[in-house]
Amino acid sequence: MASRVLVAGASGYTGALAARLVERHPELDLAYVTSRSDVGLRLSDLYPRHRVDRVLEELDLDRHADVDAAIVAYPHGAAAETVAQLRARGVPVVDLSADFRLRDVGVYEEWYVEHPAPELVAEAVYGLPELHRPELEGATLVANPGCYPTATLLALAPLARAGLIADVVVDAKSGVSGAGRRATQTTHFVEADENVTPYGVGRHRHMPEIDQELAALGAAVTTVFTPHLMPLDQGELVSCYVTLRDGGAASDLRALYEDAYAGEPFVELADRPPGVRDVRDTNLARILPVADERTGKAFVFCAIDNLWKGASSQAVQNLNLMLGLPETLGLEA
Amino acid sequence: MASRVLVAGASGYTGALAARLVERHPELDLAYVTSRSDVGLRLSDLYPRHRVDRVLEELDLDRHADVDAAIVAYPHGAAAETVAQLRARGVPVVDLSADFRLRDVGVYEEWYVEHPAPELVAEAVYGLPELHRPELEGATLVANPGCYPTATLLALAPLARAGLIADVVVDAKSGVSGAGRRATQTTHFVEADENVTPYGVGRHRHMPEIDQELAALGAAVTTVFTPHLMPLDQGELVSCYVTLRDGGAASDLRALYEDAYAGEPFVELADRPPGVRDVRDTNLARILPVADERTGKAFVFCAIDNLWKGASSQAVQNLNLMLGLPETLGLEA
Amino acid sequence: MASRVLVAGASGYTGALAARLVERHPELDLAYVTSRSDVGLRLSDLYPRHRVDRVLEELDLDRHADVDAAIVAYPHGAAAETVAQLRARGVPVVDLSADFRLRDVGVYEEWYVEHPAPELVAEAVYGLPELHRPELEGATLVANPGCYPTATLLALAPLARAGLIADVVVDAKSGVSGAGRRATQTTHFVEADENVTPYGVGRHRHMPEIDQELAALGAAVTTVFTPHLMPLDQGELVSCYVTLRDGGAASDLRALYEDAYAGEPFVELADRPPGVRDVRDTNLARILPVADERTGKAFVFCAIDNLWKGASSQAVQNLNLMLGLPETLGLEA
Amino acid sequence: MASRVLVAGASGYTGALAARLVERHPELDLAYVTSRSDVGLRLSDLYPRHRVDRVLEELDLDRHADVDAAIVAYPHGAAAETVAQLRARGVPVVDLSADFRLRDVGVYEEWYVEHPAPELVAEAVYGLPELHRPELEGATLVANPGCYPTATLLALAPLARAGLIADVVVDAKSGVSGAGRRATQTTHFVEADENVTPYGVGRHRHMPEIDQELAALGAAVTTVFTPHLMPLDQGELVSCYVTLRDGGAASDLRALYEDAYAGEPFVELADRPPGVRDVRDTNLARILPVADERTGKAFVFCAIDNLWKGASSQAVQNLNLMLGLPETLGLEA
Repeated sequence: MASRVLVAGASGYTGALAARLVERHPELDLAYVTSRSDVGLRLSDLYPRHRVDRVLEELDLDRHADVDAAIVAYPHGAAAETVAQLRARGVPVVDLSADFRLRDVGVYEEWYVEHPAPELVAEAVYGLPELHRPELEGATLVANPGCYPTATLLALAPLARAGLIADVVVDAKSGVSGAGRRATQTTHFVEADENVTPYGVGRHRHMPEIDQELAALGAAVTTVFTPHLMPLDQGELVSCYVTLRDGGAASDLRALYEDAYAGEPFVELADRPPGVRDVRDTNLARILPVADERTGKAFVFCAIDNLWKGASSQAVQNLNLMLGLPETLGLEA
Repeated sequence: MASRVLVAGASGYTGALAARLVERHPELDLAYVTSRSDVGLRLSDLYPRHRVDRVLEELDLDRHADVDAAIVAYPHGAAAETVAQLRARGVPVVDLSADFRLRDVGVYEEWYVEHPAPELVAEAVYGLPELHRPELEGATLVANPGCYPTATLLALAPLARAGLIADVVVDAKSGVSGAGRRATQTTHFVEADENVTPYGVGRHRHMPEIDQELAALGAAVTTVFTPHLMPLDQGELVSCYVTLRDGGAASDLRALYEDAYAGEPFVELADRPPGVRDVRDTNLARILPVADERTGKAFVFCAIDNLWKGASSQAVQNLNLMLGLPETLGLEA
Repeated sequence: MASRVLVAGASGYTGALAARLVERHPELDLAYVTSRSDVGLRLSDLYPRHRVDRVLEELDLDRHADVDAAIVAYPHGAAAETVAQLRARGVPVVDLSADFRLRDVGVYEEWYVEHPAPELVAEAVYGLPELHRPELEGATLVANPGCYPTATLLALAPLARAGLIADVVVDAKSGVSGAGRRATQTTHFVEADENVTPYGVGRHRHMPEIDQELAALGAAVTTVFTPHLMPLDQGELVSCYVTLRDGGAASDLRALYEDAYAGEPFVELADRPPGVRDVRDTNLARILPVADERTGKAFVFCAIDNLWKGASSQAVQNLNLMLGLPETLGLEA
Repeated sequence: MASRVLVAGASGYTGALAARLVERHPELDLAYVTSRSDVGLRLSDLYPRHRVDRVLEELDLDRHADVDAAIVAYPHGAAAETVAQLRARGVPVVDLSADFRLRDVGVYEEWYVEHPAPELVAEAVYGLPELHRPELEGATLVANPGCYPTATLLALAPLARAGLIADVVVDAKSGVSGAGRRATQTTHFVEADENVTPYGVGRHRHMPEIDQELAALGAAVTTVFTPHLMPLDQGELVSCYVTLRDGGAASDLRALYEDAYAGEPFVELADRPPGVRDVRDTNLARILPVADERTGKAFVFCAIDNLWKGASSQAVQNLNLMLGLPETLGLEA
């Protein structure tokens, strides 16, 4: 029998896509869709393209906690309390916010706000299956990674594990959906169109998340990370420029990546520079590692769809692992 | 000596562009820029591309009315009161809103709101120089036309004057800047990008304005008019499909337009279908009339830049006429 | 056992998408992919996004005709000969070109070229399932409709059948993929971006196709039809403005469409103006009929994805009907 | 009396824009426009937006060398011969190609082709006025820089001169016009739209040009440089990540740039991250230097319009210097 899933925060871009993916998943049932701002509206009116003909309700844990799992798509800070309530009722949760991604509560509070539920941090597993698959199987609380950390960590993990990263610059480019559904000057068509702009220079919140996970892989670096807003809706590319440690054998780079990702269902090694269009509307990461003879550095490019592998489809991949379902179910390209 | 001009409402798209055009105009001085919502900000921070390094002030008519003319770029309903105060102090005004475009206050109130200054309607001249040049010379209150009426009337005026229009369908396409600077779901990049949508179907406020002016030219028709939002920032195309009155000599169509627009500095007759890119950042209207042998109808296509000829540069063209300056001054492509 | 399908001309936009849809179809096997220009290349290198990892071969009917059906995606004029050869070997064919769409060879030759296989015209069924379903079941040669006729006929069929169309203007807007994969000045990014342009004014080849089918439904009209190129990749909107015959009861318009399309799996009646984004990457047509009180006309808007319902997914829908498979198989959104 | 200028190669993007800028320049006369591929066409038909109503001729040096200066906008390799012929007749030339940018003919031949006119290399001045103004005044042969070197060198020159660059990564983003007017799969709208892709990875021809000029400023580095194609028409952003030499005082970074560019008419120091929209259709470079406390590196972002400061308007700036005209003439924003 299919597992029943609540999607809380289904009126935002990532919540709505999660609802769509759950509804069409062969072993999941979309039990409820809730929203804090759009109660009473039909999801199919907000997002005709998703064709999820369900009415958004106000979250009522007395009624909505009778589910087998939940995806929470709230902003950071707002998510933790609801996650805690769901966990208190025994509901396994995938949290799309940043609230449980950082192992160190002090670091979280430095970059975000006072942590609303620090007692749950130890329970949370960082939901990047390619790095944490064993812990994700049967996990009860999964912190779904940020879109930039997803692409960056998939790009750098093989080098990090091999102890090869001396220094790294990550220049990231994202479509406007990464800024969320809220209408602002930044997301106004006339500002984003025919434009490209760096943002969060020197202080983007995905930095500690990237560094935490690289350190866990053995690479204690302070990553240079600068995102740029680009005039497209979905898609994200990270361009990583790695200064290799002495002895770094750039010539074996391709083999290193082939070994690292052999059998990974959602990682593709490309022969040519990947474009974000190549992975649109998929759970795939498409990666090209390049050993640069001119400078001796390694370049790694990784393209994902920020709303899919960078958020909602990765949440379903995590849900599959938590519930003991085949990892690729409902996510085939 | 250059005439001093106040631009009120300079933080919106059309007001900001008007400020830029005034500042670089050889015979105009930008006296003040005011804003209702962004007082204290530099216009060059809001719009680096315009390079108008001036601080937005709150409008204070005791200080700001010592000018030779004003451009008011407020929303309809809000404009009329300020226009009236400026007129009471003797300041000639170009009003970018709809408040003084309709000759019939009843029609205005049917489509908009209760008229805040009906006593001024008689003074106002409809600011489409190609139709109303003599009245605009020396006028003291000019109602700058809407962007759609500008393109539509330039497309249809020769046929209307010749009494040839039996019925007309106008299908209009506009870039997102036409929706203004306010951030809404409609103007969100992710909604407008890779999309095209009709809006205002059957009830767009530019309809009575179009019909009023066509009637003044002798064509008493109820125009079918449907605008569509397109994924581009600036630019507007109207495609007009005209059923001709019996006796309509479609074969003379080109000559009719050449006669009508001979000597017009801002109207171009094209040999091929005009694209909005052809007129970007100019005060030009580019028109192609086509006599369709298959159906016997006349097709007329007209491309303008909705922010320029559809709003701010046309305001400067009107200002030139009001102040006795050469009509093309400051507007050369 | 799955039916084996040849896709000839798989390196173009519509052929490549057809190959992808066939490959993932639960009851179809992609037997061969052939190309006239890209023999030896992998389809997955030309189109990483489709993930069809197959090598393009030169068409060799001695080897490739051992299939249960073929989709031919050649340009008009070039298709008919290959279609004829496949039919001579007994292979059922869906032809994406215009070669068998027009019942009258004289009309075809007036708009296209000398017909290369006029003897097959009588065998061909016009592949718009919503109009010709019974004849498509078991058909051996299907002429897949053009993208514009697909959208226009779905928009107008209920009015045509009811005898209500006195006159009709169709203003169509299409993304650039409709111009095909060939690189030209028209499809150059810098020409299409931030632009919108009418084309084929007065003489687009989809006109006789639209008029033929409207006449078959009882509406003997000469349709005004003007397409416009828009800055987006996939998507098509037709805006139809219909002058109704006397007695046309505009008030019953919605009911007319609900009756006409009740049970149609790929037609959606919208409550609001449809956007092309609503139907991207689907076989759906999304339609809004509006009875306009101001003018007494009926407006009908129809959005499709020009590459899907306008070409390749409709080909699969036709293939399902030809082969006796459930019509929606492999096409669920 | 105005100087007469020949623009050779005026049918490409940069040549056409150069023709427009020359035609509207108060002290230049557009003497002839020539083309290798579009002889007989009107420039105003190829580019209605430029409104240069002139017929493209075949270059005939017996007739066309009676000018005071020439701008040659040919591809590399093809330019040198024509440049040599013009120089042989005494005509001062601004060459938009790469043919005379590299001081070392051996390096040129390694990255491009056999040099067609090596004897002229010594005469050529590298046309980045902010670095080479004194030599450009009165120069007879100017090698106009590539678009990427223009932005990169303006971004890095102050650090290079101060001896602060230990290592540098340049991640560049460009609009599609940078690929030129030729229609290719790369410039096809459907490939570039909703996409972002790295290209020229590890081997872009602008690398030796960047390194040559940095070395001339005292920074002997091998620059990491990777360009990316973005879905917009005009505009270029370089994001430079600089590892500083020991003793590099990042805190003085802003002052370093203010000193370096004080009085430069076409360099703007920004307070916020620059967007390419900020400099569209201008000869401006907009730069933000940032001292990054987290990593100790310096980040420098520079936005230009690749067709203007990256090519044609910089050519006019150079022409002004060569002919003894005020440097900013004809280039005011």
